[in-house]
Amino acid sequence: MDRIAEFRKWKVQCLSKADLSRKGSVDEDVVELVQFLNMRDEFFTTSSCAGRILLLDGIVALKKANGDATLKFEPFVLHVQCRQLQDAQILHSVAIDSGFRNSGITVGKRGKTMLAVRSTHGLEVPLSHKGKLMVTEEYIDFLLNVANQKMEENKKRIERFYNCLQHVMERETMTNLHPKIKEKNNSSYTHKKQRNQEKAHGQCITKENDKELENDDDDDLGINITIFPEDY
Amino acid sequence: MDRIAEFRKWKVQCLSKADLSRKGSVDEDVVELVQFLNMRDEFFTTSSCAGRILLLDGIVALKKANGDATLKFEPFVLHVQCRQLQDAQILHSVAIDSGFRNSGITVGKRGKTMLAVRSTHGLEVPLSHKGKLMVTEEYIDFLLNVANQKMEENKKRIERFYNCLQHVMERETMTNLHPKIKEKNNSSYTHKKQRNQEKAHGQCITKENDKELENDDDDDLGINITIFPEDY
Repeated sequence: MDRIAEFRKWKVQCLSKADLSRKGSVDEDVVELVQFLNMRDEFFTTSSCAGRILLLDGIVALKKANGDATLKFEPFVLHVQCRQLQDAQILHSVAIDSGFRNSGITVGKRGKTMLAVRSTHGLEVPLSHKGKLMVTEEYIDFLLNVANQKMEENKKRIERFYNCLQHVMERETMTNLHPKIKEKNNSSYTHKKQRNQEKAHGQCITKENDKELENDDDDDLGINITIFPEDY
Repeated sequence: MDRIAEFRKWKVQCLSKADLSRKGSVDEDVVELVQFLNMRDEFFTTSSCAGRILLLDGIVALKKANGDATLKFEPFVLHVQCRQLQDAQILHSVAIDSGFRNSGITVGKRGKTMLAVRSTHGLEVPLSHKGKLMVTEEYIDFLLNVANQKMEENKKRIERFYNCLQHVMERETMTNLHPKIKEKNNSSYTHKKQRNQEKAHGQCITKENDKELENDDDDDLGINITIFPEDY
């Protein structure tokens, strides 16, 4: 079986499996993005998390915590299997340009090519030590606000990634629809395409960086916290 | 110029440049590892940080801080340019097996292949808000202890990575010294080699995971903090 046929087989197998995550479904904030990727011939997603705020400890109530409780914000994470290295490179560029600076490609022994989209955005705050609460309740409220603000920024980055991806994929599709031009002027066309992509990326960055500079004050940040046991 | 010659040229150029980091030299804890990689034909390092604890704010003294001060622990980060994708794959496996789970490969448009070694280990704690200190001094002492413990764990992981790398590279060198065997039984030899590598990796993990299970109590953890302005 050739590489592309093998990739298609993996894709069908993976997407027909039940969702084995605890939640059992894709997070709402990334559903469209995940569907968009899975509709493309060159990709399929293997796991995703839109972002979450967690309190890590053995028991639920913070005042009763007898271990070392920690509050964590974990940003958006996405794993995408790619048909070939070139597809992973394109997706990687989109991820980096959208602010997911810790993204990277993994190439397995049998050529399985994965892209992990990862952010540098984080928060990890120890709250109690050996059952003793080390911070005030006022600080915890403050912290939850910080975490929720990070969650909002995280959402904006996901949107930016999705917009940038649609833009770049549109260009890729157009290129694939005109293979004759490609065949005719192969070398120069590739260079031109690269330049266009660079330009397109540039536009994405400029446009989106402007957004980042805007005042991000949110009027009504609902506090949004999920409590998981440590082995989650 | 072929790919390998081009890689050599990049390597010479990069390693002959002055160290432009603020510190101006490679961190002590990673000097040996960096030298080991740079002595190999298939790699050169482009940047490294052994790990650091930072207080991010506009001014030095925490009590005088008028912004939002944050204490951060940033673990080991290493960027290595690789001769070809296969070399990056080997280094990536070593990184993942040593606990650097956020590591990933980047392939540039002209084929520049980089591996970023990254950890999931972190700490990011907001301390003050609009100049108001939100935590007690006792909590800050506790936090510095947590950060220093993470720094010790980080050092162990660097050692694990270095040991595992030496082990795997030794095998690679032996394989390259016996190209005749390789030529003779190309297919079966490759499989055997892969199995051996897997076994070697397995040993690395088992041995080193045992270490991780040991009691990590350090008798005398010196508090070790560097203060940087926010634009560092």
